[in-house]
Amino acid sequence: MRAAVAGVRWDVGGLVIVDQRRLPAEVVEWRLDSVDEVADAIRTLAVRGAPAIGLAGAYGIVVGLRQVRPGSVEAALESVRAIEERLRSVRPTAVNLSGSLARVRRAAVASGATSPEGVVAAVLAEAVAIHAEDRDATLAIGRHGARLLADTPRILTHCNTGRLATGGDGTALSVVYALAAAGVMPQVLATESRPLLQGARLTAWELRAAGVDVRLIVDSAAGAAMSGGLVQAVIVGCDRVAANGDTANKIGTYQLAVLARHHGIPFYVAGPLSSFDAETPNGHAIVVEERSADEVRGFGGHATAPADVPVWNPAFDVTPAELITAFVTEAGVLEPPFGPSIATAVALGAGNATP
Amino acid sequence: MRAAVAGVRWDVGGLVIVDQRRLPAEVVEWRLDSVDEVADAIRTLAVRGAPAIGLAGAYGIVVGLRQVRPGSVEAALESVRAIEERLRSVRPTAVNLSGSLARVRRAAVASGATSPEGVVAAVLAEAVAIHAEDRDATLAIGRHGARLLADTPRILTHCNTGRLATGGDGTALSVVYALAAAGVMPQVLATESRPLLQGARLTAWELRAAGVDVRLIVDSAAGAAMSGGLVQAVIVGCDRVAANGDTANKIGTYQLAVLARHHGIPFYVAGPLSSFDAETPNGHAIVVEERSADEVRGFGGHATAPADVPVWNPAFDVTPAELITAFVTEAGVLEPPFGPSIATAVALGAGNATP
Repeated sequence: MRAAVAGVRWDVGGLVIVDQRRLPAEVVEWRLDSVDEVADAIRTLAVRGAPAIGLAGAYGIVVGLRQVRPGSVEAALESVRAIEERLRSVRPTAVNLSGSLARVRRAAVASGATSPEGVVAAVLAEAVAIHAEDRDATLAIGRHGARLLADTPRILTHCNTGRLATGGDGTALSVVYALAAAGVMPQVLATESRPLLQGARLTAWELRAAGVDVRLIVDSAAGAAMSGGLVQAVIVGCDRVAANGDTANKIGTYQLAVLARHHGIPFYVAGPLSSFDAETPNGHAIVVEERSADEVRGFGGHATAPADVPVWNPAFDVTPAELITAFVTEAGVLEPPFGPSIATAVALGAGNATP
Repeated sequence: MRAAVAGVRWDVGGLVIVDQRRLPAEVVEWRLDSVDEVADAIRTLAVRGAPAIGLAGAYGIVVGLRQVRPGSVEAALESVRAIEERLRSVRPTAVNLSGSLARVRRAAVASGATSPEGVVAAVLAEAVAIHAEDRDATLAIGRHGARLLADTPRILTHCNTGRLATGGDGTALSVVYALAAAGVMPQVLATESRPLLQGARLTAWELRAAGVDVRLIVDSAAGAAMSGGLVQAVIVGCDRVAANGDTANKIGTYQLAVLARHHGIPFYVAGPLSSFDAETPNGHAIVVEERSADEVRGFGGHATAPADVPVWNPAFDVTPAELITAFVTEAGVLEPPFGPSIATAVALGAGNATP
């Protein structure tokens, strides 16, 4: 088995990420020593993927406490709240970030720590617990998904949902890894995923490194691939799943779902229950962030369009539940009607989670 | 009225193109003095757009004859055939190239010229006639299309189909220019059109230069734009229309047609009758060229993917006739059933053409 890359790790007492902006040209790690650096890393997508930014946020509170060195328990808890507030707004669409931050803050308050060091220890323990749960969740997603896709191993996926994007093997890509481990040879078509090319830069690189059969296509070739019989199943990740199953994910996900429906191809969404948000009733309630026009006007400092051309650059879109065949979660495969199946899984997941 | 750019022109006795690879960074003209240069310009997409490469091919025969300086009428006609053979294979999908070359060759043979110079004159006259017809066709397409889209001016278009791609105002973009000239303010969403970014580099540039309201999106945002109400009509060009209406065009066209159908948005194909090929019964008979993997692995010398990742890079896809609302041609708007409406228009067009 080849060595696996990790997007986020807590190493010798510090938060270390792989700077995903520099892939695939070079693998560079970046140690984040301040809340400013954590915020910058999240905002600039040096660390990305809904579960991975949740982890970066959770560890980011530890980084911030070490930076501030609070003199009292009260000051420590106040710092936790301030760091949570600061980091939560950096990327609004993925629920994992706000969810992890809130969970760490609740753990700090509930710890009953009698010293600032005790608060730091409680925060770190909770971040490590979130990381471990996320890793376990990705492995379980892989197992459940591999059973589902064993007979349809010609897979199209979008963006990057693997070892860089999560605390473990990934969401959609964990299914690919589990298929490969089970001796099913998956054939993956990876969309390049403009504007930031996570499919080209990260998924292609990560799957090649793992020895998985992957072919890269432009986003515009997905329909032709489906009509040409190259795709038996589509599987993608998710940034936020509403209570009714409407799903926010990387821009382009929605049109892949429409195309899959048109071609009679199943469309699966893989994600940990931490990406499901019971507070969001449906897709209309999901805030979709719009990112900089310059992401579309060029790539890697090379202009691809007139510098002054207006741009519409939503980072995500919302796929309505009726276009989704099933969700693959650590609690198993959730089938329609999604309202009840999601509610049951989330309730069970909450029961299992560290309080 | 602002000065219009021309992708192909015959100027002071030579074939001059705008090198579209260098747009939008700079507007550089390239004078093509040999058949090798004409072939290179077509192959590398320095000149592109189905009608424009038809013109480059037609003028290219003149360029080749001047280069060879044949000593007899027989040698001149032999050269015409050899140049036709050479240029026809450079880009197989667009019918305009092979059509223009064959038309020029027939004109040379039919001219009854009694000197090599007479053959050259006949060839040049035919190329100029094709150019004039193409210009007139684009203007007529604009007029017919503007009537059709006057009440739905929020338009999505793909690739580049304007003044760079044709001998006149364009195909789909001619409709946009005609709407603007008629006082309807079109709002154009332009897809960037990976891998070669003709939408970002050329359409955005060309429409900005003409003062038209244009916004650039990544190809993956088309579905979200439609579901968000930003699109009232889709209009694209065509590289080859089969007798039944199946249409080959830039990769991504097919999925835009599926998306338009899903959202109840009309999907129009604009093109001159010279892009309709009565010899091709349906889309299955259209050869779709696959282009270099490196087009997808990077842009402008900047790598965007691992250098060794396998790629599937079809340059075109085929949209079945049943997804097309209507064709906009110089002969008017063709409605379904397309078999009869296309046959009638092509027969009339052939009747009007220079014999």
